[in-house]
Amino acid sequence: MRIGILGAGQLGRMLALSGYPLGLSFTFLDPAADACAAPVGEHLRGEYGDERALAAFCERCDVATFEFENVPAAAAAYVAARRPLMPGALALETAQDRLSEKRLFDRLGIPVPPYEPVDTRDALEAAARRIGYPCVLKTRRLGYDGKGQAVLRSASDLDAAWSRLGSRALLLEGFVAFERELSCIATRGRDGATAFYPVTENAHRDGILRTSIPRPDDPLQALAQDYTGRVLAALDYTGVMAFEFFAVGGGLLANEIAPRVHNSGHWTFDGAACSQFENHLRAVAGLPLGPASLRAPCAMVNLIGTVPPLQALARIAEARVHLYGKEPKPGRKLGHVNVVAGNGAARDAALARVQALLG
Amino acid sequence: MRIGILGAGQLGRMLALSGYPLGLSFTFLDPAADACAAPVGEHLRGEYGDERALAAFCERCDVATFEFENVPAAAAAYVAARRPLMPGALALETAQDRLSEKRLFDRLGIPVPPYEPVDTRDALEAAARRIGYPCVLKTRRLGYDGKGQAVLRSASDLDAAWSRLGSRALLLEGFVAFERELSCIATRGRDGATAFYPVTENAHRDGILRTSIPRPDDPLQALAQDYTGRVLAALDYTGVMAFEFFAVGGGLLANEIAPRVHNSGHWTFDGAACSQFENHLRAVAGLPLGPASLRAPCAMVNLIGTVPPLQALARIAEARVHLYGKEPKPGRKLGHVNVVAGNGAARDAALARVQALLG
Repeated sequence: MRIGILGAGQLGRMLALSGYPLGLSFTFLDPAADACAAPVGEHLRGEYGDERALAAFCERCDVATFEFENVPAAAAAYVAARRPLMPGALALETAQDRLSEKRLFDRLGIPVPPYEPVDTRDALEAAARRIGYPCVLKTRRLGYDGKGQAVLRSASDLDAAWSRLGSRALLLEGFVAFERELSCIATRGRDGATAFYPVTENAHRDGILRTSIPRPDDPLQALAQDYTGRVLAALDYTGVMAFEFFAVGGGLLANEIAPRVHNSGHWTFDGAACSQFENHLRAVAGLPLGPASLRAPCAMVNLIGTVPPLQALARIAEARVHLYGKEPKPGRKLGHVNVVAGNGAARDAALARVQALLG
Repeated sequence: MRIGILGAGQLGRMLALSGYPLGLSFTFLDPAADACAAPVGEHLRGEYGDERALAAFCERCDVATFEFENVPAAAAAYVAARRPLMPGALALETAQDRLSEKRLFDRLGIPVPPYEPVDTRDALEAAARRIGYPCVLKTRRLGYDGKGQAVLRSASDLDAAWSRLGSRALLLEGFVAFERELSCIATRGRDGATAFYPVTENAHRDGILRTSIPRPDDPLQALAQDYTGRVLAALDYTGVMAFEFFAVGGGLLANEIAPRVHNSGHWTFDGAACSQFENHLRAVAGLPLGPASLRAPCAMVNLIGTVPPLQALARIAEARVHLYGKEPKPGRKLGHVNVVAGNGAARDAALARVQALLG
């Protein structure tokens, strides 16, 4: 089966690497000349708004998916009219707009931080008064890795935040003093079957994910699965979805969903019986899902901006290195390292060794 | 680093799939239009005797290796004069000729079945008398998957065997009534460091490998490592080598070596901490070797001639499917399935389920 992927970054690259063993082949559409998935499939270079590129893409695949949630709605509609596009337009539209997301969570009874859409400077000020400080102003669309966000600690921050973000559709959210950030990576097959990975505990710095550690015995596993399952069903979802939560006071508050394989699930490549990448492909190819169980204690560390010497990384027996073939650039995700060990203490020690190399 | 691989079959394909995460890129030279590694790297289509093709290949790589042992000596010499070729010419020459192989084993004190080179019909008859029946007549070169072999059960088989194989350089070997066939997959780094996988118990049918099961607690592990280490050192070897043995009477008799990643090591993709594919690349790229330890009880089943429905294979939770993207043809290796389980009994049960699908 020929899989078409909109986007040819590291997620597309890892999908392809995981999909060849299933006998799948891959075509990517991506405008970037240096798209890092290009060496592992056919790369059609074109804009997502270019109908000729989209037509060529559709001709070269049997089913289509995407590796980033900001696929333009028109491109998704064009592809979906010609090929099965999974996940579907509803999932994509919902995930592209923080307000739609929040309203879905509300409707499904999934707790969310207080929020209000904000369209004017006056509305912002009024919303901040109702929600209270600190609160977070976010663009409704196109935010990622902490971009498009401003924390308001008091009314004196309103002007700066408004002047920076006010030209776009916005949402104001209550600031959550969370205890932990958790994500639940899940897959849903075309037949509605689901598989949930152990919840992953995530640590961010400067808005960018740094480490993820799966916690198979987490007391919040059942709740995270319950909430994630509600969203998968409501969106009649096919493929892998990531649901990010704030853990606070023994419960979970919904943060956001990503309708794709997700950085906080990269540990599954080495640490799960069947990785998120393979399970996404199994889902979109109409195959039975693979087991999402943990194989061994593991963790993931992102390589941001620079890659430590491969000689040093390779010397850590527990480290599985995953480089994306991208040019180094500050703040850029260039790869990650999964550590897999016989027990939690050995995992933590290996994790510390990897982190020491990152400086 | 750019890795050049002579040959673009399934071994090249799996090397590339395992090497992208290390940031490596891949160029293959192979005359076949439908070479199954082509989608996962740059495929230069050309004959191994074509100097222009070899020159282009050398230009496109920093270091070179191969995925089949029958690389023509002239091609290997051409490449080795321009790029580091690993394993080297000595390993290749030795493994290409059963007589050189046997003499090396002899010299290193590694037991071998009785053997004699055979050049004439009379010499064959005399050798058979000395070695005794049954015995096996083998071509010295280019044999694989049981091809180029004839079992002689008595003198009455001499004529047929001679007329079938007599045009080539031959070797007569004593027939070994072995208890088990074992192989030892090992890697040696540029610096001489070695890593040995647990010995693998292999079952062949019609001369083709059917199943491999790693036996981490095998009493013959130490002996297999000892013999394999002697060969690696004698050949000043870099990369993965497979050493096939006959287990008989509590000891090992050398059968043959393969100077490359090997079918009996395919289980390492899912069952070892670092696979034979990654370790071969680590060796040729000058990186530290990864651990060759077993992660969990596992086994490998080859898919020969036909592939069972993927739907059915994917339903077996313990099964990791590896298809090569090749057209079905009787006797052709089209893929393999690794089963990985929590214990030996579950592994055996899953293995039986996969085998049942093969009919």
